[in-house]
Amino acid sequence: MIRMGIIGYGYWGPNLARNLAETPGAAVATIADLDANKLALARKRYPGVGTTADFLALIADPSVDAVAIATPVRSHFEIAMAALQAGKHVWLEKPMAETSQQARALADEAERRGRVLYVDHTFIYTGAVQKIAEIIRSGDLGRLYYYDSTRINLGLFQRDVSVISDLAVHDFSILQYLLGEHPLAVTASGTNHFPGTPENLAYITLFYESGTIAHTNVSWLAPVKVRQILIGGSTKMIAYDDLEQSEKIKVYDKGVSFTDDPNQIQEMRVGYRTGDMWAPKLAATEALRTAAEHFVACIEHGRTPDTDGRFGARLVELIEAATTSMRNRGETVFTRSQDKAA
Amino acid sequence: MIRMGIIGYGYWGPNLARNLAETPGAAVATIADLDANKLALARKRYPGVGTTADFLALIADPSVDAVAIATPVRSHFEIAMAALQAGKHVWLEKPMAETSQQARALADEAERRGRVLYVDHTFIYTGAVQKIAEIIRSGDLGRLYYYDSTRINLGLFQRDVSVISDLAVHDFSILQYLLGEHPLAVTASGTNHFPGTPENLAYITLFYESGTIAHTNVSWLAPVKVRQILIGGSTKMIAYDDLEQSEKIKVYDKGVSFTDDPNQIQEMRVGYRTGDMWAPKLAATEALRTAAEHFVACIEHGRTPDTDGRFGARLVELIEAATTSMRNRGETVFTRSQDKAA
Amino acid sequence: MIRMGIIGYGYWGPNLARNLAETPGAAVATIADLDANKLALARKRYPGVGTTADFLALIADPSVDAVAIATPVRSHFEIAMAALQAGKHVWLEKPMAETSQQARALADEAERRGRVLYVDHTFIYTGAVQKIAEIIRSGDLGRLYYYDSTRINLGLFQRDVSVISDLAVHDFSILQYLLGEHPLAVTASGTNHFPGTPENLAYITLFYESGTIAHTNVSWLAPVKVRQILIGGSTKMIAYDDLEQSEKIKVYDKGVSFTDDPNQIQEMRVGYRTGDMWAPKLAATEALRTAAEHFVACIEHGRTPDTDGRFGARLVELIEAATTSMRNRGETVFTRSQDKAA
Amino acid sequence: MIRMGIIGYGYWGPNLARNLAETPGAAVATIADLDANKLALARKRYPGVGTTADFLALIADPSVDAVAIATPVRSHFEIAMAALQAGKHVWLEKPMAETSQQARALADEAERRGRVLYVDHTFIYTGAVQKIAEIIRSGDLGRLYYYDSTRINLGLFQRDVSVISDLAVHDFSILQYLLGEHPLAVTASGTNHFPGTPENLAYITLFYESGTIAHTNVSWLAPVKVRQILIGGSTKMIAYDDLEQSEKIKVYDKGVSFTDDPNQIQEMRVGYRTGDMWAPKLAATEALRTAAEHFVACIEHGRTPDTDGRFGARLVELIEAATTSMRNRGETVFTRSQDKAA
Repeated sequence: MIRMGIIGYGYWGPNLARNLAETPGAAVATIADLDANKLALARKRYPGVGTTADFLALIADPSVDAVAIATPVRSHFEIAMAALQAGKHVWLEKPMAETSQQARALADEAERRGRVLYVDHTFIYTGAVQKIAEIIRSGDLGRLYYYDSTRINLGLFQRDVSVISDLAVHDFSILQYLLGEHPLAVTASGTNHFPGTPENLAYITLFYESGTIAHTNVSWLAPVKVRQILIGGSTKMIAYDDLEQSEKIKVYDKGVSFTDDPNQIQEMRVGYRTGDMWAPKLAATEALRTAAEHFVACIEHGRTPDTDGRFGARLVELIEAATTSMRNRGETVFTRSQDKAA
Repeated sequence: MIRMGIIGYGYWGPNLARNLAETPGAAVATIADLDANKLALARKRYPGVGTTADFLALIADPSVDAVAIATPVRSHFEIAMAALQAGKHVWLEKPMAETSQQARALADEAERRGRVLYVDHTFIYTGAVQKIAEIIRSGDLGRLYYYDSTRINLGLFQRDVSVISDLAVHDFSILQYLLGEHPLAVTASGTNHFPGTPENLAYITLFYESGTIAHTNVSWLAPVKVRQILIGGSTKMIAYDDLEQSEKIKVYDKGVSFTDDPNQIQEMRVGYRTGDMWAPKLAATEALRTAAEHFVACIEHGRTPDTDGRFGARLVELIEAATTSMRNRGETVFTRSQDKAA
Repeated sequence: MIRMGIIGYGYWGPNLARNLAETPGAAVATIADLDANKLALARKRYPGVGTTADFLALIADPSVDAVAIATPVRSHFEIAMAALQAGKHVWLEKPMAETSQQARALADEAERRGRVLYVDHTFIYTGAVQKIAEIIRSGDLGRLYYYDSTRINLGLFQRDVSVISDLAVHDFSILQYLLGEHPLAVTASGTNHFPGTPENLAYITLFYESGTIAHTNVSWLAPVKVRQILIGGSTKMIAYDDLEQSEKIKVYDKGVSFTDDPNQIQEMRVGYRTGDMWAPKLAATEALRTAAEHFVACIEHGRTPDTDGRFGARLVELIEAATTSMRNRGETVFTRSQDKAA
Repeated sequence: MIRMGIIGYGYWGPNLARNLAETPGAAVATIADLDANKLALARKRYPGVGTTADFLALIADPSVDAVAIATPVRSHFEIAMAALQAGKHVWLEKPMAETSQQARALADEAERRGRVLYVDHTFIYTGAVQKIAEIIRSGDLGRLYYYDSTRINLGLFQRDVSVISDLAVHDFSILQYLLGEHPLAVTASGTNHFPGTPENLAYITLFYESGTIAHTNVSWLAPVKVRQILIGGSTKMIAYDDLEQSEKIKVYDKGVSFTDDPNQIQEMRVGYRTGDMWAPKLAATEALRTAAEHFVACIEHGRTPDTDGRFGARLVELIEAATTSMRNRGETVFTRSQDKAA
């Protein structure tokens, strides 16, 4: 039984507590928050649980095996680092840190100490993304040509976080998971329409060594809500509409094909191919539950989470790169991981 | 009665002939084409019309008042310049020339000689774009924040023309018409997935001095067809779906509003506003017919077409700028017109 | 302050308790259920509330002003009658009774004693139905030609209740509310595809003296979910799609018009008229909350609920009439209320 | 080579002429019409074709092998009977006659003389209906539970023809083709909202001996256009939306299943089953071309058309039965064919 300490019982903490409490193999031992009212709420719902205003005490408690951190981003690094250094496994909300340097330091620390560091990019654990990954890994799409996402709506403007951190990060995480490849370069444009607010609209292109090109269009200022991802391969293509109730994912047997027909030598030797469409049934499990079970399994079997510290750090790098490019009107930014690799 | 000569009777010429023949105030006098079979077809359909393989003879004919040119792009400059120099009014298919330099030379020549030079950006004359222009000019949208277009499908690959000239040019023309403003700068990314073919997918951002930002996502490699334009203003927003049969344009009484409520001083002082939606009825007239009537009226009343040589030349400049940026991975390209103005 | 007793704390009772507890002017005093575990749950959530297994004791309690009944249908008549006879106001779940005779007896009793008898046809209190009623009452639709509803999905088969009681009753209640008119006659067809189960699919037509015709298509055996109502008037028409997130109601300026043009004397003198479409913003309040406030206001001000016993009884009559017609392959059934009126 | 005579060159005749002329194995020999202008048009388009104002002369011409009849319905019987009696094969537009008695007489005559009598229910030859038939015949749907069609729009009111003959007849023909079974009984309701016009809205239910139930909702007075057919089987279900561009037919692996689980003995022993969805690619051939080729093949190989006189006569019977039921407010009408069989 993995005894969990939860730090931060505000907006998201109660969801974590509920899911971790209900996951076989895990139990919620202690909950920390600076706000006494929130701790009172926690005690009412979980009568046997200990509560504290001192997260360092929670971390120092030897009966706690793992710590889930749902505090504001600016405190992620300090708390997560302390927890790892105390030998705890860590569940960390996204984005995992304010800077990619901090994020990499956390990933390094977890690896050095052999602890599980799970970063909560929940989207990866949805039935839809899991199914797309399965299709791509089966080779059914052929060579991946592009990933094209539109993620727009009339959204809540946030004080400290731009639309890139809020919305584009979902595409960054899905791309990282599906492609298993970090982009070579990023170019972004965008703007804030209201002085003193973060960017509310951005267009980001990612270039990959394999030739895949990815693009995401994110906005908090659209009259209609759209959550659509298109993925084009050489043999099949996927349309994923997250607002569809029953057929989120459609797989199209469509594409272009080339001919050597000499009669077409004057024309482009490109033809169309269209066949059936197929909408696979998706798993109905709640993504956060799947994620909690994955976290527990990683600790029990010494495995690395699909969204580990290294994974999370690359996404923070991409947020930084896209933001830099956007603030320089589309300047190409080469990603650090790539620089290091080169 | 304006007597028209038509040069080029291949794919598009017959449509021009039919529309110009049926427009009050115009008549088709002569048709020129290098292909004798096509001239035979023309004579069969229009028994009284003269035909010739020599476009210079057509241009030299003093009984011809105006010339419509529907030949391949590479011949546009030579033919149109000859026609203008012979004192003819000119209807020129798009794009008006291979280079912006040629395009500007044609526009200059038409102005110098006081002739009508109409460039056939037909989209401008659709009921939908006319209605959007009417709404914007009424001030109903407030300040224009953004224009966001998605124009994708499984499209015909073309030999000499990239997806920018084929699809993005429609957005360039609509933007030029709606905003009455040339962008300051362009940044684009895109790629060709098949060696030896033009780019088949591109993402283009345009920046305007007024603060408006525009983006178009164009592709010949999408499994689904999308033709959607969103236009966001400070008081209202428009969604224009060209594939909708009955409600192409929806006007949303939606937006964000700012508050000075001191209780929200900790939070972003941004709120949402949502009201009714309204889908105006659109004119059902065929756009090419509206355009032909506009051309005739401009000649009769000495007016300048909405899509004149100056208009067309700016779009050729934008195609050049976007292509340059795309081939330099998103490098910002400042537009020539802007340079001149500065 | 109206002190409420709630009888039945199973599936729906907790929703009633929560909404009534949160409604200004009402308080939950006592909760009755035969199941001790459910009463324990009720005490945990509402520490100050009395609980009892004896609904007659609750009804006899002079400190209780009104009773909400959320028990199985077969017990509705007995409990509601006892409560009314004890002088209580009554909130009764739908359908209000097993037979129209029982339903009318309850309505009579409430009227005789001057008590409020509210039947919980919650659909009437949604923002959508309220808005449609407002539009119809304004006269904007002109004369009402038809009401056409499709209410289908892959639904839960129920043991004692056919798809008419489950789904068509919503249309019966909306029609009763919108038209303020009881149908003259009903004809229905339908079937059960599985022996020993109630009808799972039905098509019902209602005829009104005003000439309005209404139809509802209800099914538990459809591969797609549809909740669409069309209402056609002589000047405008409404399409109401309850599955739409943002534009549930669309008002079309569409219709047919007649001409006396003698040139059309050979043809039908019917023409089309199409104009703008308008999607009004709907109130976002939860329907059950609106209903609870309505119930309290009716008691406080001595008013009759929009969905009173008379209203509810007519819907039970319609369920009976439609079921009779369906079991006689579409035989016309004249409604009892109409008989009485004639 | 089958030499065709075409009688009636008004609205539909030119389409027939074009399709028959382009079908291998057929040639248009003579065209008859009472209007000399229409014959002039026919000669212009088909220089080698004979024309006549006398349809009897055309029928008497021994060089004519087959006659296509596209005249008003009231003349169908006389012309078709004369053609059959003269030994011609006949292509007859729908509905094939004014009464079912006439229709059966034509079918009898064709059978007696061994001539091909093709009734032009073109819908049967669309790629969509052909694909649905293929799926049903494969047994993939299991037992057929229901067919449910909605076929509504703001339609052209016609003088002599009700919405049943205009729209519902499409469902009658599709049902006849898919089920290969004539309904036992029909019940219909509907109305005309404008005095002196035919019914503009109808709801029709068909009952089959196999237990299948069919329903069609047809209207010329709807604000939105719908063309949707749902077909429910015991193992799979189909949704066919004729307005969809790319995925007209969706096959759902969905249904209900029964269990003998004793734990569910208290509940209905009905469960849900949902699996993948599949949208097959459809043939793109124009239906009228497919029909013309079918007609020629039937003559050449002595085969009976899928939509022969017997087929067409049953549809006229159904129009009569539905109209009778509708005019008697839903009275059950047993079909004549059934009576005869019993």
